[in-house]
Amino acid sequence: MDERTKITLDESEIPRRWYNVIPDLPEPPPPPLHPGTGQPVGPEDLAPLFPMELIRQEVSGDRYLDIPDEVIDVYRLWRPTPLFRARRLEKALGTPARIYYKYEGVSPAGSHKPNTAVPQAFYNAAEGTRRLTTETGAGQWGSALAFACAQYGIDCEVWMVRASYDQKPHRRTLMRIWGATVHASPSPITAAGAKILADHPDSPGSLGIAISEAVEVAAADPFTRYALGSVLNHVLLHQTVIGEEALKQFAAAGERPPDVIIGCTGGGSNFAGLFLPFLREKLAGRGDPVIRAVEPAACPSFTRGIYAYDFGDTAGFTPLMKMHTLGHDFIPDPVHAGGLRYHGMSPLLSHMYELGLFEAVAKQQRECFAAAVTFAKAEGILPAPEPSHALAAVIEEANRCTASGEEKVLLTALCGHGHFDMTAYERYLAGDIPDFELSQPRIDAALASLPRI
Amino acid sequence: MDERTKITLDESEIPRRWYNVIPDLPEPPPPPLHPGTGQPVGPEDLAPLFPMELIRQEVSGDRYLDIPDEVIDVYRLWRPTPLFRARRLEKALGTPARIYYKYEGVSPAGSHKPNTAVPQAFYNAAEGTRRLTTETGAGQWGSALAFACAQYGIDCEVWMVRASYDQKPHRRTLMRIWGATVHASPSPITAAGAKILADHPDSPGSLGIAISEAVEVAAADPFTRYALGSVLNHVLLHQTVIGEEALKQFAAAGERPPDVIIGCTGGGSNFAGLFLPFLREKLAGRGDPVIRAVEPAACPSFTRGIYAYDFGDTAGFTPLMKMHTLGHDFIPDPVHAGGLRYHGMSPLLSHMYELGLFEAVAKQQRECFAAAVTFAKAEGILPAPEPSHALAAVIEEANRCTASGEEKVLLTALCGHGHFDMTAYERYLAGDIPDFELSQPRIDAALASLPRI
Repeated sequence: MDERTKITLDESEIPRRWYNVIPDLPEPPPPPLHPGTGQPVGPEDLAPLFPMELIRQEVSGDRYLDIPDEVIDVYRLWRPTPLFRARRLEKALGTPARIYYKYEGVSPAGSHKPNTAVPQAFYNAAEGTRRLTTETGAGQWGSALAFACAQYGIDCEVWMVRASYDQKPHRRTLMRIWGATVHASPSPITAAGAKILADHPDSPGSLGIAISEAVEVAAADPFTRYALGSVLNHVLLHQTVIGEEALKQFAAAGERPPDVIIGCTGGGSNFAGLFLPFLREKLAGRGDPVIRAVEPAACPSFTRGIYAYDFGDTAGFTPLMKMHTLGHDFIPDPVHAGGLRYHGMSPLLSHMYELGLFEAVAKQQRECFAAAVTFAKAEGILPAPEPSHALAAVIEEANRCTASGEEKVLLTALCGHGHFDMTAYERYLAGDIPDFELSQPRIDAALASLPRI
Repeated sequence: MDERTKITLDESEIPRRWYNVIPDLPEPPPPPLHPGTGQPVGPEDLAPLFPMELIRQEVSGDRYLDIPDEVIDVYRLWRPTPLFRARRLEKALGTPARIYYKYEGVSPAGSHKPNTAVPQAFYNAAEGTRRLTTETGAGQWGSALAFACAQYGIDCEVWMVRASYDQKPHRRTLMRIWGATVHASPSPITAAGAKILADHPDSPGSLGIAISEAVEVAAADPFTRYALGSVLNHVLLHQTVIGEEALKQFAAAGERPPDVIIGCTGGGSNFAGLFLPFLREKLAGRGDPVIRAVEPAACPSFTRGIYAYDFGDTAGFTPLMKMHTLGHDFIPDPVHAGGLRYHGMSPLLSHMYELGLFEAVAKQQRECFAAAVTFAKAEGILPAPEPSHALAAVIEEANRCTASGEEKVLLTALCGHGHFDMTAYERYLAGDIPDFELSQPRIDAALASLPRI
C-alpha cells in the first residue's frame, strides 16, 4: 500500500466500457409497465422521448457496453477523477480505518451528473435530436445537461422548480452561461404548467410538475427529446465509470478491496456508479464489501418505503416502475440535500435491495452537515449536502473502528462539491438547520396514492 | 506531442523546491524603505508581523528554497494541478495555435492562493504563532488562509471589506466553515476601524482599511502575526510551483516551449508563479517566450502607472516599496475582478518590467467576460473574472494566429474558478456589465499622493 494522498490515473485509463449489472443478477428486475394497459412498455412507447441507443441500453442484457470515442473525448475534460485517501480526516478522527473517497466534484458542473449527461447528449445529437428538455430542482442535473449539450451543439431547455429558480439563481446562471434556456416551472408555455398556474398563480412548483412540462414539450416535437438524470438503468450504467476507475485506483495503490462501500441515494445513480463494479468483483469472489446506501431521514424510500409499482413523477405521466417508493404524492420536508428529495428509487437498485445485495440506513441532516464541516476542515473540499449523508455514515463507521480497533478499508463517493450550497451552510453555522421527524401516518397517506395494478 | 487533453502528474512530482528569480537578474530589486527614516527596512522591522523564515525568504539570494515536507503533505490535497490542452477551445476558435492552461481552481479554496497560504501558515505555526490576521476583499485570499490555518491548527482572523461582507456572503461562509473568524471592516474592535466608523458609520470599507486593522491586531500581540496574499517576494516564490509543474508537463506532453505566456496581474503572484520558471529556462537559452501581463483597464498599474516608491496600503502604514503604482489613494472603479483592484504591483515584478523581461496590456471587463463565456462553453470550466483577463488576451493571440497561420504555442494560468462570482456572470448575461474609462487627470490626482523621499 503506497503513501499517496491522491491516486490519479492518466486519461488513457478512462474506462472504455460501461458495466451493466443486470446479466450478473440471479433474476432481472421487473419491467416498467404502461399505465393504461398494464403491459410492459416497449421501445415504441419510449421512442418519442429517448433516442434508440439509450432505449437499447435501458434493456440491454450485455455485461459491457462500449463508450463512444466522442464521449471519451469529453470525459477527458475531468476524468479519470481522483481517488483520495483521507489521511487528514483519519488523523482528525483518530481512527485506525483507512478511508478513501472518489471525488466527482472535479467535473465542470461540479458533480457526477455529467457522466450520464454527456452520453445522453451525444446519442441524441447522433440521432438527429436538435433540442433536449429536462427538469431540475436545485440545478445540478440541469447544469450538467446544459454543459453536455454545449459540447455537441444541441439546444437545452430546462424547467427549473420555481422555488429554486427564485431562491437559487446561481445554478440557473451557470446553465445560461453554457447556453441553455431556463424556465421557471410551472411555466405558462406548456399546457401542464398553464393549468397549474391558472389554479395556483403562486405555485412554487415541484419536480413532478417540471417533469410534466419537459416531457410535454419533448413529446410534441420530433426533433426534441427528453433527458433524465437518475433512476433509469442507462443512467446507472453510465455512472459505472466511477467504480471502474476506483477499482483501478485501489489496485494502483496496492490496497485490498474495501470492507465497506458507502454512498448517498436519491435516485441512486452515484451510489450505483460507485459500487456496481465492486459488486461484480465480489460476485466473482474478489473482495466481500458490505455495501451501504444512505438516504435522508426526511425521504427514506429504502428504509421506510414499500416495494411496489408507482409513477416516477407526481402527475402520473411516466410508465409504472417497480421500486421502493413513499408514494408519488409524497412531498419530502425541505432538507437541503435537494438531490435526495425523490419519492422513489431506481427500479434496478430497488430490485437489488430486495435481493439482499446491499443495506440501507437513513440520516438526519444536522448530523450530515456536522460531518461535512468535519470533513472540510480536515480535507479542504467542501462537500455538497447530498454526499454529506454518505460522509456521516463513513464517520460513524470509522468511529466504530476506533472503538473496536479494526483497520477497515472504507470507500465512499464524494459526488459533488458544495460551492452552490453556501446558503445552506450559512444556515447550519447559524444553528438554523432543523431535523425533520417523518410520521408513519404521513407515509401511509402518501402510499394510499399508489396505483392499483 | 501527445494526444492528451489533460496532462496530469503523480503527486510524487510535486516540486520540492521553490524557485527564486532574484539571483538570476542582472541587478536586484530596490529594497523596501522605512517610511520614517527612508532607510531600507531590516528583519527587525518586519519581525512583529512575519515569522523569521518568511523574512529570510523575502530577502534570500538563494536560487532554490526547499519546500518543507509538512507543506508538501498539504499540497498533496490538490497538487500537481492539471495542465490542459484547450482542444475544444482551439476548435471553437478555428485557430492553428496550440493553447494550454494550467488550472489552479482544483485547490480547496478554488484558486492559486493556497500555494502561499499553506507555507505561510506552516512557518507561523512552526515558530509559535497562534493566530494569523489578514484582510480580504471578495474573499479569495481570506478563504485560502482560513483553509491553511485549519491544516496546522492555528486561529485565523479575517477583516473583510464591508461591501463584500454584506454583498458576497458565500466566501465569508466558506472561511467560517474552515474555522476562521470574519469581521466586517471597518470594525469597532480596532483603533483604526473605530476611528473610521466614528467619522463614517456607513463606511463600505476598503482593502487599505482592512490591512490597517489586521496589521494593528497582529502588531499588538506577540502570538499573533499577519499574512499577505500577493505582492511580496516570498509570495511570488511560493507560487513558482505552478510554473515548475507546467515545465514538467510540457516535457511530458512532448511539447516545445511556449511562444507566448499570458497571465493576469493584480498583485502579480499567479502570473509570476507561472512564468518565472519559464523565464529561468529562457535565460539559460531554453525557449524564448514572449511573456505578457494582462491587467484591468480600470486599474492599469503597469501600463499607466509610474515606477516609484509608494505605500502598499491606503492608510500609509506599510514600508515604502518601489513599484508600478497608480498612487495609494487611487480607488479603482468597481470591476468584478476584485482580485485585480490593487493600486500597486509586486515590487519584484515592477523591477523586472523595467528590465524589459515581459510586456503588459490592459483589458476592459466586457471583453473579458465574453472570453470567459466562450471558454466555459468550449472547455466546461467557468473561470473567475480575474483569469478571464488572461483568457481574453489568449483568445486575441489565437485569433492573430488564425489570421497569420502561425502554429504558436500559448500558455496561460487559469488561476481560479468562478463559482463564487455568479452574481457578476448574471449581470453580464443581463447586459449589465459596464466598461470604465479611466481619465488621465484621475490618475494624476492619485499620483499626487505619492510620498516624497
